[in-house]
Amino acid sequence: MKKLINSVETVLQESLDGLAAAHADIVALGPERKFVHRRELNRNKVALVSGGGSGHEPLHAGFVGYGMLDAACPGQVFTSPTPDQIVEAAQAIAGDAGVLFIVKNYAGDRMNFEMAAEIAECRTATVITDDDVAVESSTHSIGRRGVAGTLIVEKIVGAAAEKGADLAACVALGERVNARTRSMGVALTSCTVPAAGTPTFTLGEDEMEMGVGIHGEPGRRRVKRAEADAIAAEMITAIADDLAARAGSQALLLVNGFGGTPTIELYLMYNAARRMLEGRGVRIARSLVGSYVTSLDMAGCSITVSLLDAETAALWDHPVHTAALRW
Amino acid sequence: MKKLINSVETVLQESLDGLAAAHADIVALGPERKFVHRRELNRNKVALVSGGGSGHEPLHAGFVGYGMLDAACPGQVFTSPTPDQIVEAAQAIAGDAGVLFIVKNYAGDRMNFEMAAEIAECRTATVITDDDVAVESSTHSIGRRGVAGTLIVEKIVGAAAEKGADLAACVALGERVNARTRSMGVALTSCTVPAAGTPTFTLGEDEMEMGVGIHGEPGRRRVKRAEADAIAAEMITAIADDLAARAGSQALLLVNGFGGTPTIELYLMYNAARRMLEGRGVRIARSLVGSYVTSLDMAGCSITVSLLDAETAALWDHPVHTAALRW
Repeated sequence: MKKLINSVETVLQESLDGLAAAHADIVALGPERKFVHRRELNRNKVALVSGGGSGHEPLHAGFVGYGMLDAACPGQVFTSPTPDQIVEAAQAIAGDAGVLFIVKNYAGDRMNFEMAAEIAECRTATVITDDDVAVESSTHSIGRRGVAGTLIVEKIVGAAAEKGADLAACVALGERVNARTRSMGVALTSCTVPAAGTPTFTLGEDEMEMGVGIHGEPGRRRVKRAEADAIAAEMITAIADDLAARAGSQALLLVNGFGGTPTIELYLMYNAARRMLEGRGVRIARSLVGSYVTSLDMAGCSITVSLLDAETAALWDHPVHTAALRW
Repeated sequence: MKKLINSVETVLQESLDGLAAAHADIVALGPERKFVHRRELNRNKVALVSGGGSGHEPLHAGFVGYGMLDAACPGQVFTSPTPDQIVEAAQAIAGDAGVLFIVKNYAGDRMNFEMAAEIAECRTATVITDDDVAVESSTHSIGRRGVAGTLIVEKIVGAAAEKGADLAACVALGERVNARTRSMGVALTSCTVPAAGTPTFTLGEDEMEMGVGIHGEPGRRRVKRAEADAIAAEMITAIADDLAARAGSQALLLVNGFGGTPTIELYLMYNAARRMLEGRGVRIARSLVGSYVTSLDMAGCSITVSLLDAETAALWDHPVHTAALRW
């Protein structure tokens, strides 16, 4: 295992300390690093809290800041945060408007956020994201997995909360965005969890995993290495068919790197995916290209398409000031 | 070779098409994709042009936009842009204030930018960057290599040009920033050039290359895999000693991923480097963590330290609106 780390026990805490120091103008760490919160709290709005296993950076802590999340709870690598972490985060930032949990659809995450909602002494509601069309259930989830589309939900609902939407409106909006968002991923290599020390799965030199999950979970099938256009075509077909995207729709296209994929390849994949969507008559109204929802050092990428309307497009454009997303 | 590409011949053009489509509000492509330029040209200021081999994305095209570069000339992967590309870019954007070339110190880049300066029918001046302390000369350069510090020169001089600095002032500022900036890198794996199809060099499973160049050129020495703190200590010692950084100095600390390194590791390395610099009495006044000057899919990172004064800190803070850097 080749990683820039000191010991497998301290990877998360050292990385969180680095994040907090590098972006001290935006975020701060809660007690015992249980959560990352905005440096300047605003208790006059719905507070957005997300979280999940680490190893997907910058998700979620990199999205804490004006216009997006109020706090994020990082679990150990690929491990759900504990209910205790989530309760402390919620109670630390809650105002009268309540707290919205944004939770990726994995069994552990859902259970721990549900327990936290029961314990927390503040008003809470939850939006579940499940944008991954690759598989209907997986080793980690019942129902579809929540993947890169989660950041779109966090961004759009974050903007609405900033503009004064109440808790019920934030839930409805989050569910609407999630329902219009689909993703699919491909892995060229496995990731390696530091505590394991060896790759999560093995792929031959001429193999790829189509539909891979962000923890290296199996996807649809193991296939021979293919060209970018063939990969993009399979993913766009699966996404757009499932989304029933009509010609004339406006969409946000996100091409997301898994951590080990260089930018030159991500823009090439974006170019392929864009051509194919436009070929179906979908207009690409907004774009995002980069490594935002990663799987440690996995090489590969995911494609996400989210259908926009005038309201959600304006909320996407609303200013955001976080470590990883800023405009 | 596992890459998200269609053919080795079209990697660059497809990736450039993706960049231009994804950021059509910021950039546009010149004829035959010879250069990337700002969508909205401003001919009432010194125009900044950079360029070099591709494979280092987002450098340089990702830094074209308000507050930074006016144009960038991408060569083929790890290959200098031709004089023809540079001449066309310069002439397309030049106003009366002239054109500043910002050139990394590699033999091919210097030669081609020099030829372009002789041919171009506009006033030009050049700043050479050579921030890499690892080796005094290399397979690609006479004298030190220009690496990640280049983006700091581009950002700070870009802000000055935006505020009306003339060509001579931009040259002086660029040279001053370069003289106060030092970098060093480490590779955990090689990169693979698409047209070659095999890794540029080989490293054993327990080896690293200390002082590696951004084309996979040899560094100072091949060493056994070490902990993050030991790696950071060697790099910070080399950088800070060479910079003669005094206690009380203010610095910008950039931890830069080489393309195959996940964000969780970059923040951990930032945390290590920051502690060591602070231990020497240097105050970290500004920070940047991410993959900005890459080497295709190489795993590893570089550390850059740039000493700031009140003027250069303010210019760093000046608004910037590019594909890769925005505040």
